[in-house]
Amino acid sequence: MVDFIGIERIQALVAGRGAARFIEELAGEIEADFLRWDSFDKSARHAIHSPVGVIELMPASDGRLYAFKYVNGHPKNTSVGLLTVTAFGVLADVSTGYPLLLSELTLTTALRTAATSALAARRMARPNSRVLAMIGNGAQSEFQIIAFHHMLGIREVRLFDTDAAATDKLEGNLALLRLAGLRVVRCVSTAEAVAGADIITTVTADKRNATILAPHMIRPGMHLNALGGDCPGKTELHREILARPDARVVVEFEPQSRIEGEIQQMPADFAVTELTRVLSGAAPGRLHADEVTIFDSVGFALEDFSALRYLLRVHQEERGLKHQVDLVPELDDPKNLFALLVPKPREVTARAGAHA
Amino acid sequence: MVDFIGIERIQALVAGRGAARFIEELAGEIEADFLRWDSFDKSARHAIHSPVGVIELMPASDGRLYAFKYVNGHPKNTSVGLLTVTAFGVLADVSTGYPLLLSELTLTTALRTAATSALAARRMARPNSRVLAMIGNGAQSEFQIIAFHHMLGIREVRLFDTDAAATDKLEGNLALLRLAGLRVVRCVSTAEAVAGADIITTVTADKRNATILAPHMIRPGMHLNALGGDCPGKTELHREILARPDARVVVEFEPQSRIEGEIQQMPADFAVTELTRVLSGAAPGRLHADEVTIFDSVGFALEDFSALRYLLRVHQEERGLKHQVDLVPELDDPKNLFALLVPKPREVTARAGAHA
Repeated sequence: MVDFIGIERIQALVAGRGAARFIEELAGEIEADFLRWDSFDKSARHAIHSPVGVIELMPASDGRLYAFKYVNGHPKNTSVGLLTVTAFGVLADVSTGYPLLLSELTLTTALRTAATSALAARRMARPNSRVLAMIGNGAQSEFQIIAFHHMLGIREVRLFDTDAAATDKLEGNLALLRLAGLRVVRCVSTAEAVAGADIITTVTADKRNATILAPHMIRPGMHLNALGGDCPGKTELHREILARPDARVVVEFEPQSRIEGEIQQMPADFAVTELTRVLSGAAPGRLHADEVTIFDSVGFALEDFSALRYLLRVHQEERGLKHQVDLVPELDDPKNLFALLVPKPREVTARAGAHA
Repeated sequence: MVDFIGIERIQALVAGRGAARFIEELAGEIEADFLRWDSFDKSARHAIHSPVGVIELMPASDGRLYAFKYVNGHPKNTSVGLLTVTAFGVLADVSTGYPLLLSELTLTTALRTAATSALAARRMARPNSRVLAMIGNGAQSEFQIIAFHHMLGIREVRLFDTDAAATDKLEGNLALLRLAGLRVVRCVSTAEAVAGADIITTVTADKRNATILAPHMIRPGMHLNALGGDCPGKTELHREILARPDARVVVEFEPQSRIEGEIQQMPADFAVTELTRVLSGAAPGRLHADEVTIFDSVGFALEDFSALRYLLRVHQEERGLKHQVDLVPELDDPKNLFALLVPKPREVTARAGAHA
């Protein structure tokens, strides 16, 4: 049997720990894996594009465990009541090739993205950052806010989305964090939302080269957590922001980010720093209080690897047999695959007994 | 919910139709897809190798459906009671990116390989072929024999394996086909097994450049169904057999077979014919009765695509709700992923009611 985490199960696992603790523990796993960066087989993702979307396979392995994620991106899905992004994945044992865990990754992707954002911001944002602007109030926004509230001590969020219904939804979901002291400010424009912010998170959905953030909105010392520019032709930041002499750009995996990230707008020799070096201390996250720091995040297979390993551990702490699926045969003689199609002797006996 | 075919379910589906009919119907699906060869996005597989094995992802899409297979190959697994090859796969809707079916593919791979072998042999072997030599009596051998008995009218099988226990197992599993008139002859060597055979199937497991078939064993008019040479460094046929002036070699997908098939032993310009052309009639399967025809089969993602589509159809003919898994969230508002972590109003009400 292969361990299985479906939607019902992930809901229970996150509820059992609370989303904030879940994200923080996950961030610990992701950080630990980024710190052993050279242990990983880092492949580019495999993508099949259609006119309406993309389906990707994202594999990663450290030589002991192997993980892949299946993920789609279909911006028009919401118009028919479906999610833009769904995902699932598998963790396997490299020594036998057997799958260990099959898990939903739709919810988990939102949690691991928030964890990675907070990890980067902890090294890159000014200490004592208290105000977060949230540009794009869709499926990922709550998770980002929980992570920044819990892991960075954010005390005020300033919300803007071109879709007012999305902001309504986000405000409703933040009710509990308001009780915990978070100030929630609804804004009528991106400019209003970012005014006075220490950190700006952009997570908008349009698949085009957009200018969500314009140069005049950026003040010295801000940290930009740029999530929505994550595939060719999809960016959120005006290129002049990236080109500021006082800006520092950090990416997850440089070869992938050159194609998919905000830096697709920049020349191939545009200087970037990989997150692993910032986390290890080999490179600074921020040099001084006035620097504009930019985490140009596109999502990397290593983060899903870490998430699947973490999920398997918390799942096995308290799983019953029902959270498994019979995805792989169990045979007395592994060369006798055909035995699956032959009734077992005791089954024959049992049936004969029933007739007697 | 996503349709799910686990081991218990595939056993029921194959038993319900009988393996012979299941393979024949599957062969029909595979043939139909090979006949629209140009409709497919044909990718190379993605492989991660370790000292003890390989884990591969094999994607394929026709623009309407997308399929991928996860498959491992670990030759030493049998020594610890595990299968050399396990597999599972997913069929998805290209227009939404949503998965439609998650299925075991370990058993299914053996069935689809047998179906593909029989499809090729029907065009390539001499009509009235009656005697099949089966070299390698492991996990796939029964499926091959059922397919050739049912789809080609084979009346005698001649068995050989270096592992006598494997042949014992195969003989036992063939009891029912014996009752159906199949003659089963156990041989002490490959040479004895192939003597007088019309068709030779080689499906041995050693990962090396082996000489399972030597030049002197091959008689004019034979059809060779060479399955075991399927990755770099793993071949079964002496290269002189391939180089015979009276030999014709058919492969599934030429770029992949040049790397993985028997023809990895031959120069890059060695002439081969793709199976699609033989099935469509664009190229002959056999020119004359004395030709030596060779199907150098490595397994191609298109065959798994066909198998997953076929499985979804037979599964849905008679599935109940229990053969589904909650792999993907279902949301009232697709932008409100966070709703998964918020108890629903009626649950709150119900709980409040319980307290009252």
